[in-house]
Amino acid sequence: MPQLSIVQLVELTARALKRAGASRAMAQAAAQALVVAEAEGLSGHGLSRVALYCRHLREGRALGKAKPKVVRRKGATALVDAGGGLAFLACAMAVKEAIARAKRYGVSFVGITNSHHMGALAYHLAPVAQAGVVGLAFSTSPSAINAWGGKHAFYGTNPIAAVFPRSGAEPVVVDLSLTEVTRGKIMVYAKEDKPIPVGWAVDNDGSPTTDAKAALTGSLNAIGGVKGAALALMVEVLCVALTGAAFSFENDSYFEPGNKPRIGHAILAIDPAALAGSDAYFSRLEIMINTMLRDEGVRLPGARRQKLTAAAHTNGLQIADAQIAELLALAGKKSV
Amino acid sequence: MPQLSIVQLVELTARALKRAGASRAMAQAAAQALVVAEAEGLSGHGLSRVALYCRHLREGRALGKAKPKVVRRKGATALVDAGGGLAFLACAMAVKEAIARAKRYGVSFVGITNSHHMGALAYHLAPVAQAGVVGLAFSTSPSAINAWGGKHAFYGTNPIAAVFPRSGAEPVVVDLSLTEVTRGKIMVYAKEDKPIPVGWAVDNDGSPTTDAKAALTGSLNAIGGVKGAALALMVEVLCVALTGAAFSFENDSYFEPGNKPRIGHAILAIDPAALAGSDAYFSRLEIMINTMLRDEGVRLPGARRQKLTAAAHTNGLQIADAQIAELLALAGKKSV
Repeated sequence: MPQLSIVQLVELTARALKRAGASRAMAQAAAQALVVAEAEGLSGHGLSRVALYCRHLREGRALGKAKPKVVRRKGATALVDAGGGLAFLACAMAVKEAIARAKRYGVSFVGITNSHHMGALAYHLAPVAQAGVVGLAFSTSPSAINAWGGKHAFYGTNPIAAVFPRSGAEPVVVDLSLTEVTRGKIMVYAKEDKPIPVGWAVDNDGSPTTDAKAALTGSLNAIGGVKGAALALMVEVLCVALTGAAFSFENDSYFEPGNKPRIGHAILAIDPAALAGSDAYFSRLEIMINTMLRDEGVRLPGARRQKLTAAAHTNGLQIADAQIAELLALAGKKSV
Repeated sequence: MPQLSIVQLVELTARALKRAGASRAMAQAAAQALVVAEAEGLSGHGLSRVALYCRHLREGRALGKAKPKVVRRKGATALVDAGGGLAFLACAMAVKEAIARAKRYGVSFVGITNSHHMGALAYHLAPVAQAGVVGLAFSTSPSAINAWGGKHAFYGTNPIAAVFPRSGAEPVVVDLSLTEVTRGKIMVYAKEDKPIPVGWAVDNDGSPTTDAKAALTGSLNAIGGVKGAALALMVEVLCVALTGAAFSFENDSYFEPGNKPRIGHAILAIDPAALAGSDAYFSRLEIMINTMLRDEGVRLPGARRQKLTAAAHTNGLQIADAQIAELLALAGKKSV
């Protein structure tokens, strides 16, 4: 497995995306996000997505020449239209608006409409934490979870992310989808002909199943069943009803031929200076973290990603031969 | 079981709370909330709590003469100090601030510090939906969930609630705690000497257990394990680090002698008029609901509560004899 630097990987990925039709800025923003996810150990949102993005750009499901625009500003809120392009430029624009408005008004809420797959959700919040601001992010995705009691996939995996800046340390990073497990995990069980635990998925009749193959034709369970489904509904309203985007059930799967997804995302930013004040916030947060870590075995959310990223910046990343070959082919290059 | 009207029950409950030391306004606000929860079928947050509130008022863990105050206002945010009283007047004050600020700035975030048990969380958001505004609420509680990987209860049950106003129909209401099940449910299993399913709780060594009795000396599992624990962390920061309240792990159990809880809550309000606009919001939301309900077996979150409440307003509520006797004793009355 060849070892490549972050810079080399970003360059190669950006070249592949440009070749598929993305503008220089869009390609650069997407490449950066995908390589960071790979570095963080989130390979499902990393280089494995490059081929998919290229296909969507070629098929016009993602518009390579789209330029995101702030289409509405009101007080502490704004709405960004991604113009049907890849999500990353639009998310960066939304985050910039969110930080500025949170600093001015104490809190801000920025919606993004007409967008596409946003990758690892917490990635977008890094500048929020950098600015000393608390950030939350929400997104929908093509449907994966049944409405509670139903037979058909209705909600997306609908991730929720949050960053909590610390004084003199890396921020606490929360990033999770609302499904009990990923579809990828169930595929591994199906391949090995192993039963899955109760509670992971339902079959295409909406009934709980331990048959991995039946689960793959059905839907994923939300965390806590009815509770996670309710949280998924909340994410749909925040990302879609408020922004005018398309609901999860209106999105075709990314992996089959289909429509422009018109995904919605939302960013919430809160300036700790606004309420009890920055001093109270930073000192209370450290007390929480110190108490938490006194219980042996507890690790801080986000710490693993941060460690892996730091190592990747120093040592580069080992990338499987097949992955490199795919990237080179997409980039139209013979070698790195 | 006697049948009492909502009005009778509120009067009786308010009298009990006043007798324990609550001001007229505090007693009235708390009684209203407890009886509504009872009417909604949420008996765990209903009349069963009256005796506990009275005890806390008598012991000074909740201050009956406290007057909540807005102690800070900045742009779209505000901070309410509950003054150590019961939560309900402070929450109502915070919600009023949140609605006004959301109407003006598009979004608002209001923290509440120095508070007490807030009952059924979604209750507080009813005026938000009434004003045509989207509302979310968060609260901590005395610790119940281990930090992921830990041995000791650290986070509260940390409920999340949301209301989504509809055009010409009751709002959609989401209201859930982040534990897989309630402690009460495990107590039923322990009483019947039945094993609990894997995933509900851990023993006092932090290990998964199916022994209901071991679970009761341990901690509750969060929905989705590590995921729900991360959401619980998010709720702690929003309700406590930002407001200066006490963390869940700093609260003594309500059911044993202990400290003033100094609980934190947070209200987020978003005006649909601010982003894609009210028309887009209401029409998109109805499309979501109609599509959802086409899948047989699906019911709308909040619908059951609304139906039960409507019935209670018409028919009154059947209350167990022992519960009535307790209320009468607390209120110092011989009969209703």
